[in-house]
Amino acid sequence: MRVVVTGAAGMVGRKLTKRLMEDGSVAGRTIAALDLHDVTPFEAMSSPAMHVTVHVGDLAAEGAAAALVAPRPDLVFHLAGVVSGEAEANLELGYRVNLDGTRALFDAIRHAGNAPRVVFTSSIAVYGGPYPDVIPDDFHTVPLTSYGTQKLMSEALLNDYSRRGFFDGIGLRFPTICVRPGKPNKAASGFFSNIIREPLVGLPAVLPVPRDVVHTHASPRSAVGFLIHAAGLDGGQVGPRRNITLPGVGVSVGEQIEALRRVAGQDAVDLIREEPDEAVWALVKNWPTRFEARRAGELGFKAETSFDEIIRAHIEDELSD
Amino acid sequence: MRVVVTGAAGMVGRKLTKRLMEDGSVAGRTIAALDLHDVTPFEAMSSPAMHVTVHVGDLAAEGAAAALVAPRPDLVFHLAGVVSGEAEANLELGYRVNLDGTRALFDAIRHAGNAPRVVFTSSIAVYGGPYPDVIPDDFHTVPLTSYGTQKLMSEALLNDYSRRGFFDGIGLRFPTICVRPGKPNKAASGFFSNIIREPLVGLPAVLPVPRDVVHTHASPRSAVGFLIHAAGLDGGQVGPRRNITLPGVGVSVGEQIEALRRVAGQDAVDLIREEPDEAVWALVKNWPTRFEARRAGELGFKAETSFDEIIRAHIEDELSD
Ligand SMILES: NC(=O)c1ccc[n+]([C@@H]2O[C@H](COP(=O)([O-])OP(=O)(O)OC[C@H]3O[C@@H](n4cnc5c(N)ncnc54)[C@H](O)[C@@H]3O)[C@@H](O)[C@H]2O)c1
Ligand SMILES: NC(=O)c1ccc[n+]([C@@H]2O[C@H](COP(=O)([O-])OP(=O)(O)OC[C@H]3O[C@@H](n4cnc5c(N)ncnc54)[C@H](O)[C@@H]3O)[C@@H](O)[C@H]2O)c1
Repeated sequence: MRVVVTGAAGMVGRKLTKRLMEDGSVAGRTIAALDLHDVTPFEAMSSPAMHVTVHVGDLAAEGAAAALVAPRPDLVFHLAGVVSGEAEANLELGYRVNLDGTRALFDAIRHAGNAPRVVFTSSIAVYGGPYPDVIPDDFHTVPLTSYGTQKLMSEALLNDYSRRGFFDGIGLRFPTICVRPGKPNKAASGFFSNIIREPLVGLPAVLPVPRDVVHTHASPRSAVGFLIHAAGLDGGQVGPRRNITLPGVGVSVGEQIEALRRVAGQDAVDLIREEPDEAVWALVKNWPTRFEARRAGELGFKAETSFDEIIRAHIEDELSD
Repeated sequence: MRVVVTGAAGMVGRKLTKRLMEDGSVAGRTIAALDLHDVTPFEAMSSPAMHVTVHVGDLAAEGAAAALVAPRPDLVFHLAGVVSGEAEANLELGYRVNLDGTRALFDAIRHAGNAPRVVFTSSIAVYGGPYPDVIPDDFHTVPLTSYGTQKLMSEALLNDYSRRGFFDGIGLRFPTICVRPGKPNKAASGFFSNIIREPLVGLPAVLPVPRDVVHTHASPRSAVGFLIHAAGLDGGQVGPRRNITLPGVGVSVGEQIEALRRVAGQDAVDLIREEPDEAVWALVKNWPTRFEARRAGELGFKAETSFDEIIRAHIEDELSD
């Protein structure tokens, strides 16, 4: 089969690409060709088993999406996007990439006419508070950020285009992916990863919010697992509601720090410095806490069940050999 | 103040225009200038009290929205749109008018920079079934039509742009406006009006769905009332959730027919012929039934309280002289 990945140079995109190359197949079918797209120039590993092509460009630019899907891929992973902090800071960029880029891709797929499976990374940012203790799947979606708005609009389009049979779309409302490897990005959620990743390698980290903030996380490994699982789902089983809230580990920042202590000791914890930041707090206090994620469970999506597991996944995937 | 109305040649637009001219003021302020826009050529009454300008063109066309709001209106009523049946039959037209037209207008207002009140006609089509008996304000929005999807995307944009202070938006989720005067349009909901309007003037009408179908209605007079009321609302009182589900009369088709009998007699009722139509039924059975509309009530929105009142409003407004 032919597979497309947009946002392939991103954190999740790179890990997904690696997994697809290692597995050599997805959704039970051998991958013959892999088309990787991103606006950031990047290099992909080559593979003896499949034909890998790197495409660099702006997905929202005239003709870019059409060229990408002209060979009529069987499966499209749409990960390209601008993160929350950037979408809030730069209104036009956020709408251009997160909404227009998505729409350009969806319309290009519609015109290609072969109705592939499309897996789209949405976000729990489609929700807005006030929240109940545990957020049910059918909680109303009134986002409080431009990023969440753009994801919601994209979800709506995915649902409508799937209903009309232009493709077979699955939108995945990712929880915050933690521990995010590498350097901090512009996501306001960065500190959730920083306070784990930095101390694990002996570096200091800043905690800008109170310890009782509760939030839901899944590892990058789980993120890739979600995408691969979605690729193989039976569309009929998913039904008309194509956007699915995923599971994760709902913990307070205090519990994250306790997990760090158990896994890496007090020395690591001592590297975290509390430095309240009103701007971060203003955003974070509107963020969702815990999810029921019942449909995702029924459909077989799996995440970690403790934050200790999330830290260990990071150590295995990023800090070994 | 300067007021803009888009969709001014439409059913609601014409009635709103008439009311604005008669009142001479809105939201407590005198109307000095009224800019009326539609893609369908139309003529407006002239008014000695205000400067009325007719603009004809496609709101989604490059530059059209910018030209319309260049004089920085204080109040914008955005009614232009393609109805449900047409948006379903013509995908590109629906997205172009209902989404791109709305976005062009909202962006033009953002660029004009004077942050006016914007009143947008959304629809209960943003909801999708299955439904509870009475649909609460915070019921999740998973539309089952392209029209509903376009309205939902527009609502999301309105909410985000209001949050960011580009304008002070109010989205109104209109129930079905009944009795719709004039000729049937392409809305799949046409029969709700046909079975009343036609018999009242001695003409036959077809009922394509079972009599136990329940749906919520408000008169065109109430529709205008909603718009005028929204124009004068205190934005602070509305809060961060800018899209409001409006009240109406939730009745079965059987109850509509009973009301017709009470108001116009058995002869009128005898003109209704039941002729089940699978295509109409397939759409209608996914439509919402009754709404709680609690927030709208708290904010002072008012509709009829019985279907008899709705029929009498039609007779007074359309059949008297
Ligand atoms: N990481 C998280 O916690 C998280 C949570 C919820 C949702 N998501 C979503 O998952 C997806 C992947 O997340 P990530 O953490 O890998 O993000 P990332 O920022 O690491 O990767 C996104 C990629 O998209 C690319 N991109 C940006 N604009 C583009 C354009 N115009 N054309 C083509 N490519 C463009 C970027 O260059 C980047 O490589 C994103 O859509 C993100 O919104 C992530
Ligand atoms: N009537 C109802 O039952 C109902 C219910 C819910 C929501 N609404 C919404 O209320 C609004 C008014 O409804 P209505 O019943 O008066 O509809 P209508 O169809 O009578 O009027 C809509 C007007 O928009 C104009 N229009 C279409 N495309 C345009 C474009 N590209 N540029 C500029 N103008 C354009 C049409 O020419 C028409 O005059 C619409 O947005 C509709 O979706 C109506």
